Amino acid sequence: MASTLLSARDLRFLLYDWLDAESLTRRPSYADHSRETFDGALDLAERVATDHFAPHNKANDTDEPRFDGERVHVIPQVGKALEVLAETGLNAAGLPASVGGGQLPHVVAGACNAWFQAANPGSAAYPFLTVGNARLLLAHGTPEQVDTYVRPMVEGRFTGTMCLSEPQAGSSLADITTRAQDAGDGTYRLFGNKMWISAGDHELTENIVHLVLAKIPGGPAGVKGISLFIVPKHLVNADGSLGERNDVVPAGLNHKMGYRGTANALLNFGEGRHTPGGRPGAVGYLVGEPHQGLRYMFHMMNGARIGVGSGAAALGYTGYLKSLAYARERLQGRALGDKDPSRPPVPIVEHTDVRRMLLAQKSYAEGALALVLYCARLVDEAETAPDAAARERADALLDVLTPVAKSWPSQWCLEANSLAIQVHGGYGYTREYDVEQHYRDNRLNAIHEGTHGIQALDLLGRKAVRGGGAGLALLLETAGATSARARARGGAEAEFADLLDAALDRVARTAAAAWAGGDPAEALANATPYLEAVGHVVVAWMWLEQLVALGDAGDARDAGDAAFRAGKRAAAAYFFRHELPRTGPQFDLVASRDRTVLDTPPDVL
Amino acid sequence: MASTLLSARDLRFLLYDWLDAESLTRRPSYADHSRETFDGALDLAERVATDHFAPHNKANDTDEPRFDGERVHVIPQVGKALEVLAETGLNAAGLPASVGGGQLPHVVAGACNAWFQAANPGSAAYPFLTVGNARLLLAHGTPEQVDTYVRPMVEGRFTGTMCLSEPQAGSSLADITTRAQDAGDGTYRLFGNKMWISAGDHELTENIVHLVLAKIPGGPAGVKGISLFIVPKHLVNADGSLGERNDVVPAGLNHKMGYRGTANALLNFGEGRHTPGGRPGAVGYLVGEPHQGLRYMFHMMNGARIGVGSGAAALGYTGYLKSLAYARERLQGRALGDKDPSRPPVPIVEHTDVRRMLLAQKSYAEGALALVLYCARLVDEAETAPDAAARERADALLDVLTPVAKSWPSQWCLEANSLAIQVHGGYGYTREYDVEQHYRDNRLNAIHEGTHGIQALDLLGRKAVRGGGAGLALLLETAGATSARARARGGAEAEFADLLDAALDRVARTAAAAWAGGDPAEALANATPYLEAVGHVVVAWMWLEQLVALGDAGDARDAGDAAFRAGKRAAAAYFFRHELPRTGPQFDLVASRDRTVLDTPPDVL
Repeated sequence: MASTLLSARDLRFLLYDWLDAESLTRRPSYADHSRETFDGALDLAERVATDHFAPHNKANDTDEPRFDGERVHVIPQVGKALEVLAETGLNAAGLPASVGGGQLPHVVAGACNAWFQAANPGSAAYPFLTVGNARLLLAHGTPEQVDTYVRPMVEGRFTGTMCLSEPQAGSSLADITTRAQDAGDGTYRLFGNKMWISAGDHELTENIVHLVLAKIPGGPAGVKGISLFIVPKHLVNADGSLGERNDVVPAGLNHKMGYRGTANALLNFGEGRHTPGGRPGAVGYLVGEPHQGLRYMFHMMNGARIGVGSGAAALGYTGYLKSLAYARERLQGRALGDKDPSRPPVPIVEHTDVRRMLLAQKSYAEGALALVLYCARLVDEAETAPDAAARERADALLDVLTPVAKSWPSQWCLEANSLAIQVHGGYGYTREYDVEQHYRDNRLNAIHEGTHGIQALDLLGRKAVRGGGAGLALLLETAGATSARARARGGAEAEFADLLDAALDRVARTAAAAWAGGDPAEALANATPYLEAVGHVVVAWMWLEQLVALGDAGDARDAGDAAFRAGKRAAAAYFFRHELPRTGPQFDLVASRDRTVLDTPPDVL
Repeated sequence: MASTLLSARDLRFLLYDWLDAESLTRRPSYADHSRETFDGALDLAERVATDHFAPHNKANDTDEPRFDGERVHVIPQVGKALEVLAETGLNAAGLPASVGGGQLPHVVAGACNAWFQAANPGSAAYPFLTVGNARLLLAHGTPEQVDTYVRPMVEGRFTGTMCLSEPQAGSSLADITTRAQDAGDGTYRLFGNKMWISAGDHELTENIVHLVLAKIPGGPAGVKGISLFIVPKHLVNADGSLGERNDVVPAGLNHKMGYRGTANALLNFGEGRHTPGGRPGAVGYLVGEPHQGLRYMFHMMNGARIGVGSGAAALGYTGYLKSLAYARERLQGRALGDKDPSRPPVPIVEHTDVRRMLLAQKSYAEGALALVLYCARLVDEAETAPDAAARERADALLDVLTPVAKSWPSQWCLEANSLAIQVHGGYGYTREYDVEQHYRDNRLNAIHEGTHGIQALDLLGRKAVRGGGAGLALLLETAGATSARARARGGAEAEFADLLDAALDRVARTAAAAWAGGDPAEALANATPYLEAVGHVVVAWMWLEQLVALGDAGDARDAGDAAFRAGKRAAAAYFFRHELPRTGPQFDLVASRDRTVLDTPPDVL
């Protein structure tokens, strides 16, 4: 019985037949790994996700974290799952061996993570935020900070958070007011309130390591005056034992539509509930240099954005597999035009419109998963490629793809989950089935870690123009190489290569047209349709990449494999014929510098 | 302070300046009414919806109906709201005076109903289903049945249901197995199980009148053997008093993602819990002729489908108004390019992408409301137009518009609610704000009363081809007349008239192209994109109708009115420039008779 979380077969195709993950084992960083250790990690992730995360996904939803005014209570299954995760080492599979991590390449660790995101995004958020936190400290912390905070995170004893938003400052971090006063002893004292802090408080682990953006009084105004601090829930003594309670306390939890398993807290810093060392304020330790906090945080944020895309893809994927399983079993109606009620009803997968909804889901979910794994592979390339030019190239391509990898899965795998409900009919709208929860959970992804609109401004306002459009040019060159390979194969690949080339041509031309007037307000008025159109073009490219990889991998070896290949071909065809054409009117609109929205004054709405 | 449920100003514009509802008072059916009585009903509906329905909308969601194994418990606020509704007569505002109803035209009653659908769809479903039930009995029941069941429904003492689906037969009514055995005394005895019965059991009223589809043994197989029965929860004595408990009992409730205020039951008929008259089976009374049940039920169903569209539009509308209010108040960020953090943040409505999300919502919600009221106006025309040709014409146009009026608001006002969440950012994803509930509630509308895919088959498989495509031709002729009037005005109206004409041209040509191969499976393989494209064209027409009506109504009378007009113009412009172009690739796909989905075998998914 195949899993309804993800397809192990597809992951292996993506990792090995397409992204050539095995070649990474020839690099020094991954020399201790092999195809066997990769497969072992993937199998283990599937098993732990299936046995320890999926079973309480619904309980996370129905029995969400609770705040009693003092403590945050999370159902015990979450703690148990995190324990198993730490025992297996999967919590830190992608972290360096130097701190006790598994040293897996990003692309393999990313594939492992997708199992947990499909099984239980609420519980998976705790270790995922912890890894992001650890990576930031590995990059910008001192050796002591790494020893004190990262190692216990790797061991599963501490979890981590990122504390950016405040009640009055969400997307606009320039306006944060949390302040960090120099205590004169090498530490700082923090005062302020942070909002939307995922995994912000709980008792699942001994300690919580908050990474907090705050302003040092007297520093520059706006984002240039933001510094980054470690603020542990409990102070850590020199020997690693826990010391005093720090003055960071939950003030309440947010009650969300979905994603309920992750305790999401409003945190007060330095409100006076505790006074470590007898002095007011939450003790904080500066990370790196003062006023560089936002830059450090974006180190974590870019990874988090791809993680959001991966989470959206994983939910889209499991919704697809569950609705496919349902459609194969549920009997209803007869073939079109068959009016003979004496014949038995057919499985609904026989109905064309049901297959349309399944094929659309497949094209979104598999396309999105391919995209986020491609990005993870670029991270590996940026970190470990033998020559500097290749590393820079991967970094530049990743830079331009990040807003797409965050936003496209969030939009289209939500749509996939809506289609998964629709395939189930009324049953899918009930809480007896999983898909309604997936839909609610997935709706978060277009909001957190930078909203959809913020991603659009990032793409058209920064990534598409920086360096004279070098990032876009690199994207077009790379995707163009794919279509050249595909065209050489003829047949459907050649058809799709032509479609992709035409769409790629519009990507750069449209950005240029948007900016041709020289007015940023006008250029960016339609940034969101631009982001969405580019997203569809990028995912079309991912589909063509997969078709090329199918071809490279030789002929079908068995019947199951033939079905796998035919399914990939059908989903690619669906994407090129039903989806990619959507971009035409979007590019037209952006290129025309349509001012309808820009010129609508707020008071007429 | 304007309502955030609906806009009373917009309703008056739609009813009077556009749909000329006042002219209906010159017809005998509505001769007792006047603009004043219409306004009185609208004001009353707004007040009752605001004071008695909106306040417990959230409680309906958090404290959903509960089944204790015997009885269904609904929060008391629902009963109180229904009492007020019956006291004001708004529960039966559109039913004939002959049975105690308010005899309002459908278009005015529809506008009144929209207030309740915006305020609290869960509670509003009880009276709405009752009205549908009453209308069916008025059309097909005997005078005794009307006296016994309809009058108490008008008085608010009974509610009604429609019992179609069974666990194994949802969209495929041919497969229902509930059977009705002739008891030999003019009554029948029913045995079977019905699923998804909204308002199926509760104790809000003295009695519940179930209208049940069942098969009389020995009748034709399939849909041709379906008959319709009245099955009251409590038998009704000749003097109108309640008699024995009938053998229809709830077996459980469905726990839904949204729309939770409406108790949705699995009902067992004749399982033996009660034995009225000492004999097994639930007592049922045949409505009309045997084996004509489906035809009668569709009398109710067509109205219910427009009601679903109206409910979707109302939720889209209130989500729009709430996110607009939020966007005017929430301060965040600065104007594009303003990097000076010392300046205060601006209301987010100043950000272009936020205005885009508001304008999109406005174009969807106001467009959808216009469409459903236009359909209600057609019902009035079909019932009361002075000459037979006009009545037939209205009926034919309504027939072709019904699948669009059901499906388009369900799709796009759900998208509006998603945008309403997005405007609120993280706050919109929490249960502290209303919009996440609207989104969950609205997701039902693409499922019940005929799924999205069923509407698509209805449009392209039946309505577009029946009578040689006469329905479509009538639609095109009617919409074409609108564009001719708009073109004569010049300016933006002329621009939009050209765009509408080009799109209308594709509506008929594409249907013809889809069917050109003569193979229904091929023609209907892309029925859903066809439905969606036609929906966008129809709503563009509705927008042009509104612009023409704005012009007809003369110049702005005051500043508030000028803003109203400018808002309508902006939303129309948004719809024509950002939305209508989406249809191009959809029509291309359908016209090409793309076989991608059709040719994908189920086993490769």
